Amino acid sequence: MDVAPVLLKAGRKVIDLAGDFRLASPDAFAQHYGTPHTHPELLSQAVYGLSELNGDAVAKARLVANPGCYAASVILACAPLLKAKFAEPSGIIVDAKSGLTGAGRKAEVSTMFAEMNENLWAYKVNAHQHVPEIEQALGAFGGMSGSMCFVPHVVPVNRGILSTIYLRLSGGATWEQVDNAYRSFYQHAPFVRVRPQGQWPAVRDVAGTNYCDIAFTVDPAKRLLIVVAAIDNLLKGAAGQAVQNMNLMSGWPETTGLQA
Amino acid sequence: MDVAPVLLKAGRKVIDLAGDFRLASPDAFAQHYGTPHTHPELLSQAVYGLSELNGDAVAKARLVANPGCYAASVILACAPLLKAKFAEPSGIIVDAKSGLTGAGRKAEVSTMFAEMNENLWAYKVNAHQHVPEIEQALGAFGGMSGSMCFVPHVVPVNRGILSTIYLRLSGGATWEQVDNAYRSFYQHAPFVRVRPQGQWPAVRDVAGTNYCDIAFTVDPAKRLLIVVAAIDNLLKGAAGQAVQNMNLMSGWPETTGLQA
Amino acid sequence: MDVAPVLLKAGRKVIDLAGDFRLASPDAFAQHYGTPHTHPELLSQAVYGLSELNGDAVAKARLVANPGCYAASVILACAPLLKAKFAEPSGIIVDAKSGLTGAGRKAEVSTMFAEMNENLWAYKVNAHQHVPEIEQALGAFGGMSGSMCFVPHVVPVNRGILSTIYLRLSGGATWEQVDNAYRSFYQHAPFVRVRPQGQWPAVRDVAGTNYCDIAFTVDPAKRLLIVVAAIDNLLKGAAGQAVQNMNLMSGWPETTGLQA
Amino acid sequence: MDVAPVLLKAGRKVIDLAGDFRLASPDAFAQHYGTPHTHPELLSQAVYGLSELNGDAVAKARLVANPGCYAASVILACAPLLKAKFAEPSGIIVDAKSGLTGAGRKAEVSTMFAEMNENLWAYKVNAHQHVPEIEQALGAFGGMSGSMCFVPHVVPVNRGILSTIYLRLSGGATWEQVDNAYRSFYQHAPFVRVRPQGQWPAVRDVAGTNYCDIAFTVDPAKRLLIVVAAIDNLLKGAAGQAVQNMNLMSGWPETTGLQA
Repeated sequence: MDVAPVLLKAGRKVIDLAGDFRLASPDAFAQHYGTPHTHPELLSQAVYGLSELNGDAVAKARLVANPGCYAASVILACAPLLKAKFAEPSGIIVDAKSGLTGAGRKAEVSTMFAEMNENLWAYKVNAHQHVPEIEQALGAFGGMSGSMCFVPHVVPVNRGILSTIYLRLSGGATWEQVDNAYRSFYQHAPFVRVRPQGQWPAVRDVAGTNYCDIAFTVDPAKRLLIVVAAIDNLLKGAAGQAVQNMNLMSGWPETTGLQA
Repeated sequence: MDVAPVLLKAGRKVIDLAGDFRLASPDAFAQHYGTPHTHPELLSQAVYGLSELNGDAVAKARLVANPGCYAASVILACAPLLKAKFAEPSGIIVDAKSGLTGAGRKAEVSTMFAEMNENLWAYKVNAHQHVPEIEQALGAFGGMSGSMCFVPHVVPVNRGILSTIYLRLSGGATWEQVDNAYRSFYQHAPFVRVRPQGQWPAVRDVAGTNYCDIAFTVDPAKRLLIVVAAIDNLLKGAAGQAVQNMNLMSGWPETTGLQA
Repeated sequence: MDVAPVLLKAGRKVIDLAGDFRLASPDAFAQHYGTPHTHPELLSQAVYGLSELNGDAVAKARLVANPGCYAASVILACAPLLKAKFAEPSGIIVDAKSGLTGAGRKAEVSTMFAEMNENLWAYKVNAHQHVPEIEQALGAFGGMSGSMCFVPHVVPVNRGILSTIYLRLSGGATWEQVDNAYRSFYQHAPFVRVRPQGQWPAVRDVAGTNYCDIAFTVDPAKRLLIVVAAIDNLLKGAAGQAVQNMNLMSGWPETTGLQA
Repeated sequence: MDVAPVLLKAGRKVIDLAGDFRLASPDAFAQHYGTPHTHPELLSQAVYGLSELNGDAVAKARLVANPGCYAASVILACAPLLKAKFAEPSGIIVDAKSGLTGAGRKAEVSTMFAEMNENLWAYKVNAHQHVPEIEQALGAFGGMSGSMCFVPHVVPVNRGILSTIYLRLSGGATWEQVDNAYRSFYQHAPFVRVRPQGQWPAVRDVAGTNYCDIAFTVDPAKRLLIVVAAIDNLLKGAAGQAVQNMNLMSGWPETTGLQA
């Protein structure tokens, strides 16, 4: 929070991997991160760096806020549905599962191998700090203020997030229409892969890559859209997304360094 | 399906761990298990063997249908809420996570260590055969015909199921009221542990035991009840539940052999 | 080290699970544990509590030193061979593999899930503090002072030790003779299982039990005896062994509380 | 075995990842692989493709036998010691640990997740088919016919081999002399990393790479050299080694495609 202004003054561009510049409102920041923002004047110029949604703005930005790992998966999964008005913006439920690298590298008993191996649990149930940035990013497609339910779980893998998302079907979109909406939305997005019908994403398929894999089903009787999105929390959910932003900010091909 | 009648004719009591006698309707069985039932006359006398709901009927039964592993966790989590009318019976969403012993012991590439380690995925999305037995068992508390959404996931642990359940809050029940409903419902149930506020179940805590651990939160603004239930799929979800049923059928203490 | 004398003075019997009373020599203790012993007068009365070797002494002891986890597996594997003079006491090589519970419960980066999952390594190579207690315990069967080579490894499981031991064949013992030596030595030992030829121990088979599983092969051409021993480091390697000692010290059946 | 001759006749160069052309002697092949060789005439022209030992021959070869995964780690660890006469060629003991990808992709109960997770065991004790190719490759530095003891273990990781090797110290080489022997032997080898004193290899450090990490200790009192070598069994132990051979056979830089 205090390093970015120094770098900006020195004429550098900044991509922040922490959560300090993701929320536009200083009040929202204080509420969700538990401390006042020391540089609120920078919040309005920070661009939320999910390339697939804000690529043009990222390209021109001097300060980019790299998205949270959970947030990246949820926003990519929901944005096309909300834009096409195929899902209601309120009442979305996200059940997310993350590997242990998402918990950071500070040694704590709860993240020791012998505690976490053969174990899984829910945490920060309905109270995770990534929700406001998701609602802010998706707000462009219809208000959802305070209505998203998000429950993260920790599962015993090193890398990967699998977000299973339950949305209320709006209107009577068919599977094909939804598929078209996704493919149209991501037609120029090299890192989003919409999967064929019936092929559900596996964390293994995206681990070590910058891809976000997405699959979905439509249940008109239950008026539900169910979407599953998988990313590597360390790549598309963190460093890979940052490199993708750097590429855009530098005028390089978006995929530079991300296709090994 | 064909062994149970032979044993019954020989005067034996039967506890069936397969899914053959769980559904009361032969048509529903044929639809969800993909084959006609060869002994439909037995379906009406089979008792669904979730001891906490049907203990008296189990005690007198000659044929008990042991519940499915997922079903056991979901029914135990939902029954008290529906009975107390604190949750709507329709629109329930279940996001369940299971270890690999739930997949059986037939060697397949998808369940090999090198495929499943460092991996997780959703499967049978909104199409799992345990849903009808859940709806049937919970139907006593209000109709939910065909409205439950159930998405199972496989996660890389040996044992354990964690079901995260999203229900629509009905009326304005408080956390304390819901807690009372659970504790009252399970006051004589030795294997259900309702956890204190903020202590979410972990699979580790129930692995190797016949316990079902339950915790919940209430969000009046979002009109949601969120419940997490954990069981060992091989015990409360299978063999442990069967022993519990056997105890009831034999007039032994319910916990015999289940407290090691 | 300072609690045991207080309890002994109060007339209590003591089973010490730490390493403080395992070595008879205060000098050896100081050398291998890096600190002088504060109660050297107790070392001579402490009994090394591996029940299968010292059961009679344990039964009469007031102070029992519970063996180290690695040590228990190695001593049980080697004692019958050395007693029968089928293996040379010098030049023994032990390659041991342990799960993470053996590393204690202090949070450190090296034992975090994300560090240890998908990983294994050797540590304290040829320099582990369990070697002197092994040499002391096996010394009754022939001197091996300072000649044992012990290399422990950490592997990503919660529980279990697998020790693979390479001994020099002495004389020309056959597989059957060695098998007889083992079975004779352990004929009254309820927790040692000598496996049939070709059935090598697996950690899974002893996890959660107080058993030590042993298998071996004889290679006369290479003049080698190869033995594999598996235990649960938390049971036969720690608390289970302590209960077994307590049973002997209390005059109870040796298996009390250990057969669940 | 029958495809290689067809390709060779068609003028192609062949790198065989199976074990069919590793042993020079048809009799040895028949003995260790349990079937007669159908093209014994090719055995004499096949080059054993461990680039660090046979780089010049590989460069000119038309038929290269890619080494076995275990063999690669053992030969790289031992060759410098034997060449410098710092270790005796006979009486070498190898205790090797491998992840599950080394077991192939055929579905079997023993390699299912629920069988292998939380488990480890020894197999093919003193009877693995990689021993003859190790002895053949190291034979250039002194005969060891039939004297190597090799015990492989399977451990619950996806990728990686850790070989712990016990050799008899020959003469009185010091740690520094051994270190110099390793560094001199591998001065032009881009994929062998001799580690600083006290830094033991971890499988994690080589997983996903073509590196072989090696560390050792010298115990003059016990007359032992202890070496630990780590590789990724799928890369330096298989496909990566094959690419390295292809690079040499094609006149390309040895590291092409192997440094991502």
